[in-house]
Amino acid sequence: MTTSLRSTLDFLLYDWLQAESLNARERFADHSRETFDAVLDTCERIAREKYAPFNRTVDTQEPQFDGERVILPQCTHDARQAFADSGMLSAAQDYALGGMQLPYVVESAANSFFGCASISIGSNLLTTGNANAILVHGTPLQQQVFAANEFNGRWAGTMCLSEPQAGSSLSDITTRAEADGADFEVDPLGPRYRLRGNKMWISSGDHELTENIVHLVLAKIPGPDGKLVPGVKGISLFIVPKKLVDTDGQLTGERNDVALAGLNHKLGWRGTTNTLLNFGEGRYPVRGGAGAIGYLVGRPGEGLKCMFHMMNEARIAIGMAATTLGLAGYYASLDYARTRLQGRPVQGSTSAAGSAGKDASQPQVPLIRHADIKRMLLAQKSYCEGALALNLYCARLVDEGRTGEPQAAQDARLLLEVLTPIAKSWPSEFCLEANSLAIQIHGGYGYTRDFPVEQYWRDNRLNMIHEGTHGIQAADLLGRKVVMQGGAGLQLLARTIGATIAQARKHPELAAWADQLAQALQDVGEATQAAWATGNPTEALANAVPYMQAFGHTVLAWVWLDVACSVLARDATLSIAASAGRMGAARYFYHYELPHIGAWLQVVRQRDLTCAALDEDAF
Amino acid sequence: MTTSLRSTLDFLLYDWLQAESLNARERFADHSRETFDAVLDTCERIAREKYAPFNRTVDTQEPQFDGERVILPQCTHDARQAFADSGMLSAAQDYALGGMQLPYVVESAANSFFGCASISIGSNLLTTGNANAILVHGTPLQQQVFAANEFNGRWAGTMCLSEPQAGSSLSDITTRAEADGADFEVDPLGPRYRLRGNKMWISSGDHELTENIVHLVLAKIPGPDGKLVPGVKGISLFIVPKKLVDTDGQLTGERNDVALAGLNHKLGWRGTTNTLLNFGEGRYPVRGGAGAIGYLVGRPGEGLKCMFHMMNEARIAIGMAATTLGLAGYYASLDYARTRLQGRPVQGSTSAAGSAGKDASQPQVPLIRHADIKRMLLAQKSYCEGALALNLYCARLVDEGRTGEPQAAQDARLLLEVLTPIAKSWPSEFCLEANSLAIQIHGGYGYTRDFPVEQYWRDNRLNMIHEGTHGIQAADLLGRKVVMQGGAGLQLLARTIGATIAQARKHPELAAWADQLAQALQDVGEATQAAWATGNPTEALANAVPYMQAFGHTVLAWVWLDVACSVLARDATLSIAASAGRMGAARYFYHYELPHIGAWLQVVRQRDLTCAALDEDAF
Repeated sequence: MTTSLRSTLDFLLYDWLQAESLNARERFADHSRETFDAVLDTCERIAREKYAPFNRTVDTQEPQFDGERVILPQCTHDARQAFADSGMLSAAQDYALGGMQLPYVVESAANSFFGCASISIGSNLLTTGNANAILVHGTPLQQQVFAANEFNGRWAGTMCLSEPQAGSSLSDITTRAEADGADFEVDPLGPRYRLRGNKMWISSGDHELTENIVHLVLAKIPGPDGKLVPGVKGISLFIVPKKLVDTDGQLTGERNDVALAGLNHKLGWRGTTNTLLNFGEGRYPVRGGAGAIGYLVGRPGEGLKCMFHMMNEARIAIGMAATTLGLAGYYASLDYARTRLQGRPVQGSTSAAGSAGKDASQPQVPLIRHADIKRMLLAQKSYCEGALALNLYCARLVDEGRTGEPQAAQDARLLLEVLTPIAKSWPSEFCLEANSLAIQIHGGYGYTRDFPVEQYWRDNRLNMIHEGTHGIQAADLLGRKVVMQGGAGLQLLARTIGATIAQARKHPELAAWADQLAQALQDVGEATQAAWATGNPTEALANAVPYMQAFGHTVLAWVWLDVACSVLARDATLSIAASAGRMGAARYFYHYELPHIGAWLQVVRQRDLTCAALDEDAF
Repeated sequence: MTTSLRSTLDFLLYDWLQAESLNARERFADHSRETFDAVLDTCERIAREKYAPFNRTVDTQEPQFDGERVILPQCTHDARQAFADSGMLSAAQDYALGGMQLPYVVESAANSFFGCASISIGSNLLTTGNANAILVHGTPLQQQVFAANEFNGRWAGTMCLSEPQAGSSLSDITTRAEADGADFEVDPLGPRYRLRGNKMWISSGDHELTENIVHLVLAKIPGPDGKLVPGVKGISLFIVPKKLVDTDGQLTGERNDVALAGLNHKLGWRGTTNTLLNFGEGRYPVRGGAGAIGYLVGRPGEGLKCMFHMMNEARIAIGMAATTLGLAGYYASLDYARTRLQGRPVQGSTSAAGSAGKDASQPQVPLIRHADIKRMLLAQKSYCEGALALNLYCARLVDEGRTGEPQAAQDARLLLEVLTPIAKSWPSEFCLEANSLAIQIHGGYGYTRDFPVEQYWRDNRLNMIHEGTHGIQAADLLGRKVVMQGGAGLQLLARTIGATIAQARKHPELAAWADQLAQALQDVGEATQAAWATGNPTEALANAVPYMQAFGHTVLAWVWLDVACSVLARDATLSIAASAGRMGAARYFYHYELPHIGAWLQVVRQRDLTCAALDEDAF
């Protein structure tokens, strides 16, 4: 058994991304490979002990509401406690905030153990994302009272965007925020408002895991005429704690008017509560007024901008979630394929005319001896280890954007902007496909709940939906990211890929792939131009999803080529089994996957309106 | 709302396949469009009243075993009763058997209503398949006692092939069948044996829906040395009733030694019990001997051949099951997209530089107005209506094989042989993908159990596994079907496709697709040759699944082109919305799907061993 998540992380972090070199920077000066490894060790252990054994438990014991409290299984409380105790909630934060100033790429790698062990038992990404948004946009006191108590594990956080009638269309939210009394502006916790409205799809919207819950809520402040401003420009951001707190961060004993209206019953990801919350419906009247009390974060009308800080972080985290679910399925099916005896491969050199020769008097062989099983394993490896590499690369860009030299930092942020829709969408689609292959390798057993793979597949299906659907990611990519700043992001990506291509050409065994990638990059560039040739968004975006699929495959091919360069730099003869495996996964991607981009790009290039122009009555 | 399963069936049956012309044949002489329609009406009504309302019920109230009996919800009993009462169990059978001599293509179309309404509440295909196998291979008394009582609804049937240690590898089954006493050969019900062994994955293996259950069981008769013959040649077929019966088909009051060892708990398809059965373990000792009593069907050693009659029928039925699940998701998501208001499409003519213009002061529009929603709807329509057409075409081939002129009948049987792996595998893969798109259109709601689409997706995941996995279908296609009889099947398919191409070229608007299909057909032919160029099955079959995917897409493109010809023949100006819809679905297939075959065929043509040759330790 050469493959494990740890060995893959070690290679990607240290050999490929050279994470140790970050320690030359002031912020990370106290760190070393030893401290990084210690974090990985701790997370691997907690995930093994407190997460993995309970993944099925949280699937079968769904959250329940007894009318007063949300009831979660004990294992969820224990896992949350162990995670908070580990300090991982604030791993990347400043020492001053109780953090360990860990590079984000290492934090991200360490968190992958939890995703692999049980994606839905934890929902900590929302808490750190919430606290990070307050750090960036909140007042010092908001940071101290709310963000700090999320980082230290006392409280949890949510993001409340969607509403039942609006879904992905945030411009249509109708939650109202009205000034709370004449002195509303002088509240030390921030301008105080009263919120009324309903929020849908709120993960961890209610529970008893923590003393308090900090909701970050998008709402609209009515104009002088009492009307809400249409569109996203009218949206502001508010901190709405479940229980009110004072300026010392102590509970005042007052319950805020945030009421659980219902739990959603999902296909998967059942360990995390998902809720419909009613704000200010009067169920918990507070301080003699109507509405839930909330404190403005940032400036009025800039709510979406503030929230997008959290959204982008969440999108990369969703990409990592999809990836770790994919990897979990890969490891499970690899183990099964190595141990389950079944059938015999076709023999090497018989003729096609006869039935393919199999000598039934020979013992059965492990499944992994069959070519088609190997194909399904290698596809999973190629998808999931490639996605892991991409997500860690993006995490490394976060570090660069925060701690790099000015130009490098700026480039890193721009590149991250372009890559975010891919980091989110690609694993959501292809690591889900990997989970399907993991089921397939198990045969009938994979279809039963006695094996874990069906749950991975169900859990993973969420990732194409939450934090911006596939369609929204695609519109973001083709409608905004590749055209913004005159295409600067796309050009930067092309230069970055070009550097990998140049490096790969130094290795004769990679030359063909380098050519193939160069062609793919050119094809994507031309398709981008062609899509926008008429300047008509309806035509350009009609095939945004196929565009994103082709773009994603090109990005993944680049990642695999870059990884292949690292493999050869370290082990030119592929004498180590893991090297051969990585090169095999890269080869799989170039032989089996990248050739699909032609089909995807063709409709983009032609601004094909087969779908968009079909009359609604014709369906 | 122009689309319904009924309107699609009407078009495919009558306009495209000209089912009425079958009535010119003696066997169907009593039939007319009126009698066909009456059957469709009845099935549509029973499906609507007895199946559809209970699809979620059978998902949540899984079969339970109380130690004595398998408990199913009442709705399952009611649905079974209504189905049996309708006469559909013997719809295609001779009048002499109580049947209605309905063409198989009409029976198949009628059964699609049940699949669409609730695939797992019924498992009647196994009963009719079982009875059909006995009709072909059993003695007259076996037919009269067993088959007739399955067709009339008194008893149900199963097929017992797999075993826990063998899975798909039937050569490794170890269930033994030993002669039962000196007089074993003279039992009027057939040579009598005692069976001992375990059978896994037996659908409807135990229940109280019917008075008795007729198991068709594969087992091996030991040689004189007491040993089992290795390989499939040692396999024989036996009728093993759950309760013993006399030659009049009356229960003798003796329970046979067939014991339920366990129920499988599945990801989906939960309305149908799936069981591990122990034969002859001694739980129900019978007639003073050890082992379950079974009656040989056909000759010793020819069990697999006999069973394959049932398997082939089951495979086409599985393709239809996958198709109807896909259609169910399509209709659900189409309805949702037409009624759910959300967002606004991007405006027609703004520049790419600005954010795509959307006027938030305008009311929200139905989802179906968004281009990407239309894309996901049209993809579903293209997959599922195409799969429906293919499966009905195959059903029509069954009729031709049974009632056509000798040469036509022989051709139909050969063509069906080649198409069976596609009819089974293609819908299993692509109608599953359709179900995923149906979830995606629903957004977060699609991920909840409040909407039906997540269940369709779970139910459909089984179809790539049972009745021969995807890998087995692919090996059958490339390893056997396209090379057998010197490639006669493939040549016949090519001629058949060629006829469609020739017909399509008469329509100017279809000429480009005709060219595209001609090229695809040539590519598949060349890839077939290249795969076998070395005569080495290891190399040829290493990429059997990508081959099957390309082959399947080519077949579907042919089906759509043929359908398009019918559309134009009937409505040249596409004045009817349904015509425009079918033409749009065909166009989608040619623009978005068929171009993928290049990527799939490339690895086949090159006999790419990236996967097959990778060392096991490298994964």
